[in-house]
Amino acid sequence: MTYNAGHYDVIVIGAGHAGVEAGFAAARMGAKTLMLTLNIDMIAFMPCNPSIGGPAKGIVVREIDALGGIMGKVIDKSYIQMRMLNTGKGPAVQALRAQADKPIYMREMKKLIENEKNLTVRQGMVDSLIVEDGVCKGVVTESKATYTAEAVIVTTGTFMRGKVLMGHLEYESGPNNQRVSVKLSENLEELGFELTRFKTGTPPRVNSHTVDYSKTEIQPGDDNPQSFSYETTEQITDQLPCWLTYTNEFTHQVINDNLGFSAMYSGAKRGTGARYCPSIEDKIVRFNDKPRHQIFLEPEGRDTEEVYVQGLSTSLPESVQEEMLKTVPGLENAVIMRAGYAIEYDAVVPTQLWPTLETKKIPGLYTAGQINGTSGYEEAAGQGIMAGINAAAKVLGKEPVILDRSQAYIGVLIDDLVTKGTNEPYRLLTSRAEYRLLLRHDNADLRLTDMGYELGLISEERYANFQQKKSFVELEKKRLKKLTIKPTEAVNAIMESAGATPLKEPVKAYDLLKRPELSYDHIEQMIEANTELSPEMREQVAIQVKYEGYIKKANEQVERMLKMEDKKIPDDIDYDAIHGLATEAVEKLKKVRPLSVGQASRISGVNPADISILLVYIQQGNIARIAN
Amino acid sequence: MTYNAGHYDVIVIGAGHAGVEAGFAAARMGAKTLMLTLNIDMIAFMPCNPSIGGPAKGIVVREIDALGGIMGKVIDKSYIQMRMLNTGKGPAVQALRAQADKPIYMREMKKLIENEKNLTVRQGMVDSLIVEDGVCKGVVTESKATYTAEAVIVTTGTFMRGKVLMGHLEYESGPNNQRVSVKLSENLEELGFELTRFKTGTPPRVNSHTVDYSKTEIQPGDDNPQSFSYETTEQITDQLPCWLTYTNEFTHQVINDNLGFSAMYSGAKRGTGARYCPSIEDKIVRFNDKPRHQIFLEPEGRDTEEVYVQGLSTSLPESVQEEMLKTVPGLENAVIMRAGYAIEYDAVVPTQLWPTLETKKIPGLYTAGQINGTSGYEEAAGQGIMAGINAAAKVLGKEPVILDRSQAYIGVLIDDLVTKGTNEPYRLLTSRAEYRLLLRHDNADLRLTDMGYELGLISEERYANFQQKKSFVELEKKRLKKLTIKPTEAVNAIMESAGATPLKEPVKAYDLLKRPELSYDHIEQMIEANTELSPEMREQVAIQVKYEGYIKKANEQVERMLKMEDKKIPDDIDYDAIHGLATEAVEKLKKVRPLSVGQASRISGVNPADISILLVYIQQGNIARIAN
Repeated sequence: MTYNAGHYDVIVIGAGHAGVEAGFAAARMGAKTLMLTLNIDMIAFMPCNPSIGGPAKGIVVREIDALGGIMGKVIDKSYIQMRMLNTGKGPAVQALRAQADKPIYMREMKKLIENEKNLTVRQGMVDSLIVEDGVCKGVVTESKATYTAEAVIVTTGTFMRGKVLMGHLEYESGPNNQRVSVKLSENLEELGFELTRFKTGTPPRVNSHTVDYSKTEIQPGDDNPQSFSYETTEQITDQLPCWLTYTNEFTHQVINDNLGFSAMYSGAKRGTGARYCPSIEDKIVRFNDKPRHQIFLEPEGRDTEEVYVQGLSTSLPESVQEEMLKTVPGLENAVIMRAGYAIEYDAVVPTQLWPTLETKKIPGLYTAGQINGTSGYEEAAGQGIMAGINAAAKVLGKEPVILDRSQAYIGVLIDDLVTKGTNEPYRLLTSRAEYRLLLRHDNADLRLTDMGYELGLISEERYANFQQKKSFVELEKKRLKKLTIKPTEAVNAIMESAGATPLKEPVKAYDLLKRPELSYDHIEQMIEANTELSPEMREQVAIQVKYEGYIKKANEQVERMLKMEDKKIPDDIDYDAIHGLATEAVEKLKKVRPLSVGQASRISGVNPADISILLVYIQQGNIARIAN
Repeated sequence: MTYNAGHYDVIVIGAGHAGVEAGFAAARMGAKTLMLTLNIDMIAFMPCNPSIGGPAKGIVVREIDALGGIMGKVIDKSYIQMRMLNTGKGPAVQALRAQADKPIYMREMKKLIENEKNLTVRQGMVDSLIVEDGVCKGVVTESKATYTAEAVIVTTGTFMRGKVLMGHLEYESGPNNQRVSVKLSENLEELGFELTRFKTGTPPRVNSHTVDYSKTEIQPGDDNPQSFSYETTEQITDQLPCWLTYTNEFTHQVINDNLGFSAMYSGAKRGTGARYCPSIEDKIVRFNDKPRHQIFLEPEGRDTEEVYVQGLSTSLPESVQEEMLKTVPGLENAVIMRAGYAIEYDAVVPTQLWPTLETKKIPGLYTAGQINGTSGYEEAAGQGIMAGINAAAKVLGKEPVILDRSQAYIGVLIDDLVTKGTNEPYRLLTSRAEYRLLLRHDNADLRLTDMGYELGLISEERYANFQQKKSFVELEKKRLKKLTIKPTEAVNAIMESAGATPLKEPVKAYDLLKRPELSYDHIEQMIEANTELSPEMREQVAIQVKYEGYIKKANEQVERMLKMEDKKIPDDIDYDAIHGLATEAVEKLKKVRPLSVGQASRISGVNPADISILLVYIQQGNIARIAN
């Protein structure tokens, strides 16, 4: 009854934030790619907050862009507000955050996808995977279309056996009442995958006309908005503000009084929610000493009056949501346009994946995004691009691409997932990275553009610009090392104005720039200006010089770590045969099957003692057989 | 378990083309109005063709606009192409047709709705109506919200027990995989309403990049695009073309070979489809002597590559759709983005309605749009505005508003529905109107603006403009009646250039304008020009003068008709007690319960003989008791 609907190199199931990056990257690398989605009108839909970026996440977007992905380009075309966070702090924790115009974001993403050579997007419900001799060979849709392929990437987000929950109301549904995917979930179970049940939630949206903004604090965008993408040349300057208000004891009272009606607290066994993206009822229960919580009012776009009530994510009944809102300053008369709800869904336990995001059980099958147990559009997109790259690489006979923890937040994310797994929707945080100072917003291009270019995802023009930037920065650093600044009256006037101790002896410009009080602007006033440098290059020079010592130290740590990563573990290692390993370590190692001793060392339950035993075992005569 | 979620004057269930007009009109008239929709992102979604207007339908849009509705304003802001149809024919059959940018149309509609005072729009699934003492008093949603109201308008389109069909595939769904409404349908049955099962279908959409337009004929928009709305002042001049191609014997062969797989021809009992909007398989079966059928390729918007394949509506399996497309010139390599499908749904038998669209069974309950058995966005919108007006009128203690068949196509539509019912999705056609010459595109404002103004739906400014137009037209007609044109050389040169017989004797300008060869432009060259007239006014003068005789005749017919409409039938008439009425007539009259003898005369199965008997019965002594 099925019919042959064609052959592709790569098939992507889903067109959310993971799916679009996967499909685009695979197609750009030259793989004939098919994307199947349940609803073409929902490509890159944002079911939750209207924003992209933020701490760690914003850096992921830059990393995606440096690799040649699309999230950064699209948000740069569709933001209503852009802010650089933590500008008062060091460069390691700075990150961009944009408020998105949701419909425009979707429109621009759909346009990119529709116009990409090698990429076909179709509406369709995948019911099952084709697996032959243990290898994934394609998909079958409900309309009986058989699409064969060399690789399949599953990016179903929260759609697999999705269930919407609001108080006692529950019904089968994807986000925002979209059609749910049931058979694919069953198929994955039949194929032997371990699934888990997670949940996530979203707050109510209210009509802007019914908000009293005078009772809130305005949160404007930056005066000089920056871009996520290194290719963006024009900024949107006409920005919209957000607004800040707070919950209070009355809000908390309403929630406490109604906890029994919460879909999450009513006793029924439920999927696990995200610790770092909690519902308001979670916050009240877990932090019951906190007198108030922040509520940001965020417009969902320029052409809509819908306002997203960030911070009030909830699965309490609609009636309780109404009561809750009435207690919040500015929202006393707010009219709900859509009520908040939680959604419960099937996720794949991610320790079943190689760091390429290919499943260990079924070669040719990849999973990426929320299905792997993460939360957040950026985490999804970061996995999406890596799955797309690796699937295309496999098909095209290229090497797999694995980012290590010192190269990218995406590397941290994927390594955490496939090594440690996750017991709740995983959110990327700066604290998850060991080498924060290396994984900066400002150097994502320096870290990853070469890789993107080699993969064919970066244009010649962009690559030339990138190389120019790199060489100009190096030249300028050399120049600053040569230039001597003397303690003249003019120089010391500048020093004084910057609040720095005046010079007494001549000093190299390079060394002077290291002083915390002095910016590159100050130094420039003391020397002949280099007019060839762009603001980006100047920023880079300043950061590299100022933080040279810290960066050097971090790089030394990375080297030690990489040595461990270089100690590959043979594919066919028999952990049961290794004497002295703790029982728990054997179990975990057999489950995760780490590729390197470095990865093994990060598995929870595998102790330093186990690692020593493992190292000795590998070095004793097993070296010769180590897999590549 | 339910909670009181507030009281409204009017509640509208649904936010499609009927719902938005109903909600907007009721709110504008001063009724506190709530619109409940399953998905706020789908407000005014076009599930089928990306176009508004066309024969008869385009005139309905103008009528809606003259009454103060919104469809015309919104399409004027969102078209990608505008054409006046039948410009070579008489004014009675001319009509505007626009290709819509679907996402922009929705965006503009959502904006209007969100910003309207007195109008609240919320996402919600209505499970049941509140009926107390036989009167509709509100609704209850699945989230247990109880909204009370004075009037409820149901505009559920194809969502009630919707089922998508494609070959042997079928699943519960609204259009484009939207969530379906089941409980409301059951509730209407419980309340005693007779429901019927209709179906409608949509064709595949293909990616523009895969179409070979060189094998098709271009269909550009008008050079000087006109507007639907009388308030529109700016035209969109940057238009996109459509493209024309044809099916052929190979296409027909594919369809004939696969008829057994069609959801509609496979033997299963199915809802009734629309005769005047048939699927391609219907066309092949019903017109099997026709060697080809037109296929228009219509862009779905400016920012999408999706192309609507108009003329290829189908519920054949996806595999057959692929084969079909390959046979059509230009579509040989077309890649389907969404496959065509049919949708089956519950409709209310419309003879259960008064001409106000209030249900006879349950006062305070109205139904409008596709739920009443129509097809088409315009038919839906036309009913929507009338239901909105009548619901608000009832709540505000105003007179009901019923358009008669000589006043508007909307009048024809509603009278047909409530009097004759319909055995298939009803489509408005010019042939359904007895007084086509009166129901013109150009005079919709003259017919209905006074009414719109009295209802409070037309602004003072617009009404002043309208009155100026009317008076300028009248003044100009008077002037033309007075002015004598003499057979000078100059005059006869103009006559000759227009291909008209030269004048031999002086003649009034008014009479000269009646000549078919002469336009108002010609006449103007012979007299002192009236610089105060807008192009619209000039058009109106010319049409009124040229068609004076025909219009007069039509008006006489209308008067005779109206006399019959004036003969009201008492509310409590006992048809069983009238001797001589045919049995079938008694049955039909009891079912429809016509308000007037005129309406009775249009009921199929009620013969002229029955009407005579009815007339005599009413005139004999029952006169005194006649309802208003």
